[in-house]
Amino acid sequence: MQINPIDKKIEELLSMMTLEEKAGMCHGNGLFRTGGVERLGIHPIVFSDGPLGIRNEFADNRWETVGGNTDFVTYLPACTALAATFNRTLAERVGEVLGCEARGRGKDVILAPGVNIIRTPLCGRNYEYFSEDPMLTAELASALIKGVQRFDVAACVKHFAANNQETERLTVSAQVDERTLRELYYPAFEATVKAGVLTVMTAYNRLNGTFCSHSSELITEILREEWGFEGVVVSDWGAVHDTVVPAEAGLDIEMSVTSDFDDYFFAKPLINAVQNGKISESILDDKVRRILKLMFRLNMFSKDRKRGGFNLPQHQQTVLEAAKESFVLLKNDNSVLPLNADKIRTVAVIGNNADKKHSTGGDSAAVKALFEVTPLSGIVMRLAGGAKVSYYPGCLDETYSKHEFHIPSNADEKTRTEIEEKARAAQEEYKNVKIRLENEAIQAAQTADAVIFVGGTGHEQESEGRDRADMTLPYQQDKLLESILAVNPNTVVVILSGSQVDMSSWINNAPAVLQGFFSGMHTGTALAEVLFGDENPSGHLPFTIPAKEEDTGVKALGEYPGGEKVFYKDGLFVGYRYHDAYKVPPLFPFGHGLSYTDFSLGKGVVRQISGSCKEYEINADVTNTGDRKGAQSVQLYVEPPRKADSPIRTLKGFEKVCLNPGETKTITFKLDERTFSEFRTNTGWVFVPGEYTIHIGTSSRELPIAMTLTL
Amino acid sequence: MQINPIDKKIEELLSMMTLEEKAGMCHGNGLFRTGGVERLGIHPIVFSDGPLGIRNEFADNRWETVGGNTDFVTYLPACTALAATFNRTLAERVGEVLGCEARGRGKDVILAPGVNIIRTPLCGRNYEYFSEDPMLTAELASALIKGVQRFDVAACVKHFAANNQETERLTVSAQVDERTLRELYYPAFEATVKAGVLTVMTAYNRLNGTFCSHSSELITEILREEWGFEGVVVSDWGAVHDTVVPAEAGLDIEMSVTSDFDDYFFAKPLINAVQNGKISESILDDKVRRILKLMFRLNMFSKDRKRGGFNLPQHQQTVLEAAKESFVLLKNDNSVLPLNADKIRTVAVIGNNADKKHSTGGDSAAVKALFEVTPLSGIVMRLAGGAKVSYYPGCLDETYSKHEFHIPSNADEKTRTEIEEKARAAQEEYKNVKIRLENEAIQAAQTADAVIFVGGTGHEQESEGRDRADMTLPYQQDKLLESILAVNPNTVVVILSGSQVDMSSWINNAPAVLQGFFSGMHTGTALAEVLFGDENPSGHLPFTIPAKEEDTGVKALGEYPGGEKVFYKDGLFVGYRYHDAYKVPPLFPFGHGLSYTDFSLGKGVVRQISGSCKEYEINADVTNTGDRKGAQSVQLYVEPPRKADSPIRTLKGFEKVCLNPGETKTITFKLDERTFSEFRTNTGWVFVPGEYTIHIGTSSRELPIAMTLTL
Repeated sequence: MQINPIDKKIEELLSMMTLEEKAGMCHGNGLFRTGGVERLGIHPIVFSDGPLGIRNEFADNRWETVGGNTDFVTYLPACTALAATFNRTLAERVGEVLGCEARGRGKDVILAPGVNIIRTPLCGRNYEYFSEDPMLTAELASALIKGVQRFDVAACVKHFAANNQETERLTVSAQVDERTLRELYYPAFEATVKAGVLTVMTAYNRLNGTFCSHSSELITEILREEWGFEGVVVSDWGAVHDTVVPAEAGLDIEMSVTSDFDDYFFAKPLINAVQNGKISESILDDKVRRILKLMFRLNMFSKDRKRGGFNLPQHQQTVLEAAKESFVLLKNDNSVLPLNADKIRTVAVIGNNADKKHSTGGDSAAVKALFEVTPLSGIVMRLAGGAKVSYYPGCLDETYSKHEFHIPSNADEKTRTEIEEKARAAQEEYKNVKIRLENEAIQAAQTADAVIFVGGTGHEQESEGRDRADMTLPYQQDKLLESILAVNPNTVVVILSGSQVDMSSWINNAPAVLQGFFSGMHTGTALAEVLFGDENPSGHLPFTIPAKEEDTGVKALGEYPGGEKVFYKDGLFVGYRYHDAYKVPPLFPFGHGLSYTDFSLGKGVVRQISGSCKEYEINADVTNTGDRKGAQSVQLYVEPPRKADSPIRTLKGFEKVCLNPGETKTITFKLDERTFSEFRTNTGWVFVPGEYTIHIGTSSRELPIAMTLTL
Repeated sequence: MQINPIDKKIEELLSMMTLEEKAGMCHGNGLFRTGGVERLGIHPIVFSDGPLGIRNEFADNRWETVGGNTDFVTYLPACTALAATFNRTLAERVGEVLGCEARGRGKDVILAPGVNIIRTPLCGRNYEYFSEDPMLTAELASALIKGVQRFDVAACVKHFAANNQETERLTVSAQVDERTLRELYYPAFEATVKAGVLTVMTAYNRLNGTFCSHSSELITEILREEWGFEGVVVSDWGAVHDTVVPAEAGLDIEMSVTSDFDDYFFAKPLINAVQNGKISESILDDKVRRILKLMFRLNMFSKDRKRGGFNLPQHQQTVLEAAKESFVLLKNDNSVLPLNADKIRTVAVIGNNADKKHSTGGDSAAVKALFEVTPLSGIVMRLAGGAKVSYYPGCLDETYSKHEFHIPSNADEKTRTEIEEKARAAQEEYKNVKIRLENEAIQAAQTADAVIFVGGTGHEQESEGRDRADMTLPYQQDKLLESILAVNPNTVVVILSGSQVDMSSWINNAPAVLQGFFSGMHTGTALAEVLFGDENPSGHLPFTIPAKEEDTGVKALGEYPGGEKVFYKDGLFVGYRYHDAYKVPPLFPFGHGLSYTDFSLGKGVVRQISGSCKEYEINADVTNTGDRKGAQSVQLYVEPPRKADSPIRTLKGFEKVCLNPGETKTITFKLDERTFSEFRTNTGWVFVPGEYTIHIGTSSRELPIAMTLTL
């Protein structure tokens, strides 16, 4: 039997290493790096956050920024924004930007993408994830990873697994049944492993009682043995709580947030455990083998390792394109959009998100952006001296805080009265400022040629480490928006958020509504192009927008945020799977997205792939029947034989096509055996015969084509 | 006789205007705008600084910034940088950026370019001007203006005239003889008028006793009658000191810095002067006619007025190209440059200018840049993870200040002793920090694979409103640089400055020296490309670098900064005109600039242009004899018949050509009658017959081709 020359080299290196050197490679020896073995030419592995761009430089052993002017980077669209493009090619190109910039900044592993499922609209990190749907997540994450890894940089899918909330994330146990994990929460991990992702990050939380970093079932049985993962498993920063258990479970690298690197569980304690015979050295050797293999794969020992680059103009161009395709046109009554820039002389831009920069927020996903074009600046730049643009925040970006006016329990009557008086005055002042802002905005909305409201959330609401309290728009935007729409019924509404917000109080009065996301440094540029029709919107919702939080599966059937444990009683009925099965109409369905042009779908054709009775090819024609170039994401949903414990239909294919007016293209979807299978505890994946319906359309609820397929 | 329809419209508008409305158009009615006449559809004229990019937005009547995120713009190379490119096409493209961004920001007049001659290296605004040479200034300024005005925006040449220092600029009288004005200080104004510039700004200073804004000779006789200027003359902000005199002298618009707009000399006082018969209303009418004509030329009454745009990617691309061509390779012994990025593993970047942003400095030339790539960030971005770049400032960007430790005159003994003690301690601490920085830098220079020193000046030294104290590099950079070169003789030296600095103490020990400028938002990107050989440097010095300040004409023959008056006794002997005539060798001559490739010049050919004995065409071949693509600026100097009061030779032509290895191109220069003329007081321009020598070469002192021409 021949030994691969790299494997031989790995064994040579391993044989020369001391126990201490081996352990040094398996834990943080800086906040974002492992230890290297200088005498053997083994460099540390250098990690970096994050999914929206390479995070700023920190000191090696202190949470202190040290990059000065040298770590400004391209600020990318968040994963929800990418998901909304429904465009694999774009996701791959954005991945290339991420990989190229990571390499350009001297990184080996970029801690992205996050592929957790959006279970509740309230999860603070939803914007870092893709979708409520595993197929959309899997496809776009795989494309992104392909792009990243082209630059001799490893992507790192996270957070494995079932890290669907930030509340008590460090300790909570997600209690999830096996089928739900296999059909909803694991598929994106499984797909990205099969797409070649080189590293996986274990989540902070526990899964069915066991910390993910300690779970042999997760790391060894499922990830390595079942899915064939050959890369490196690294813990989330501080997600390890023991030495022997996680080491034996298969975790390769323990990272954490403190500077006592020698005291990490995989540092001295691991060396001691080996020396005391509590754990076999061969387990440590296997970790080092995997780590060295990763280093060879990244060409870290080669002089020809790819170089990167950051802030390249083409990177800015790519993120602009992705930002443009991320906008979802939810409504467009009477073709209020696009606005005609040549006819408009005055524009009132209103709202808290119109002039807010989002790059610096969100904790580990924060980015030191080379620049960030806000919606307001994008609109001003687009109108370019041809119209007067005025800005009215309309609401106060803060809430009145009682805490400043705390009355000590031992306060005497006089002190108490004084403090109460001050609190009343402050509250009055707060109300007055609020009312003034509102009134200015309402007045402006009455007279301007065009009114553009840009609201939504910021990273004050959506961030790592905490969840949102509810789905309501912050800063009483609902009330403001109702007033604006009352005085100017042609107001265009833009919501920028990483996750769903409650639109129910004003949606019926708003003629034109765009859902945008944290779409990177060119969010404002892209928005302006969409508003004024230079770009025809083509985004589709990567999540269902329910009318109310009560209308979500997690709220109606499940449990959230739980206590020490959170029971996923909603099972598979997350997002549209819930709305469809339980007949709860969403405000806007998953996959929904309008265009400035019209499309029609031709008849679909099913063809069995030769030699298989479990694989099919489906063709369908799509035609641009309008008068403007535009792109459409055609979606295929499969409805299996009816069963009470199964979703009605699930996304099994999507293809985005760009069409000139009058043009027709034929789309091809491929369905494999897994499409017609379900996971059964004890048995595993089982092919389910029976009558399937194949639906094709432009959202999970606009499905004009239906075809029956009996297996 | 037919009347032009626009003139007819102007007369109609004029006939409908009240005296107050007319006066309102002739003075600031906001800090950066005139008054409009709304009832007649006449908008205000909106001005903006500045030459390096459209300045941030101010409140209409307060010096308060109001732009928020909406007035970030492209930060352009300063005029000295443009001049160093010796590239008309690039200057025109940069002009297009300036015009497009001005229009994009809603401006009508952009207060640029400054075309004053660099008389002394110490003038604080030299970086806003082009050169010590009038021909280079005239050609590049004309090209820039052509670019600007393509966007329905007026350029404004400034500061007319002889505003060659900032010291006492508001009152000083430049005492200059007529011939020197005509042959040195006026030609760029004359040329830009002939190139179609639409507005001219009068200088703060007096010229031969009269405030420029009050000078009928300057504004009416020379500018309008002699040169045929048909545009609008606007004062520098606050340069007007009277009503009737400047009004009769021909000044059209008085701008100033205060908010009492109705009290401006051209506001109520002008209305009163007309009403009291102190000045004829027809003089005011003429001003309004010229202003209206300007507005028609700018399409301000048309719906088809051009729109602009700002922060466009192509603008960033253009300023990058200009920045690249602005770097002047002064020395390159042993081909130290370009550095080989593939072989370098550690780079020490040293110096105060390596990581300093310059966009926000310089007063009216300050720019709110969308981003600015410093040299350090440019180098880090260029090496892109392939080498470790460390930064050592090496010097303290501030000087120890005694002022903090002022001892009150009535201080008792104890207080005095205490303050003295504190002062001593602070001084000690300052020295210690300085020494620590120096030592760190020197140590790093000993071990790094490559050492790049980036020094020079900032806008703390070079700014509107003040001159430099001397030519010395600030912050004791000389001493630091000497130490660095002593430990690492391969150190690459980069000087970024707007004007000449004294290099004498270290130049002989520095093998490779690049002179750069305030070259805009991509200075660092451009520098890195030059350092690592992606770009072959092709800049040429737009000024002579003397060994010492004593070696300048202004110091040796002239007067500077003068008192109430400053006598230009150096006459025409400014810059190379002095060095050549007085046989004072410069450190680096005007026009000098090396390349990574080699060029040879073929024989020149002179041809009389048919039908004229005063116009000639000169051809010369230039060949790239090296092995790398590169550009060369071939320069033509004319030496007139020898006369004691005339310069030996002056620049009369330049052409920049880009050549592949082995390629030859033929360059054509055209010489007109003015080339062979001199200005004589009372007589005017006089053709001078005799024997001329035509020199062709690559700097004012590297002139291998000489041809005789007898007229």
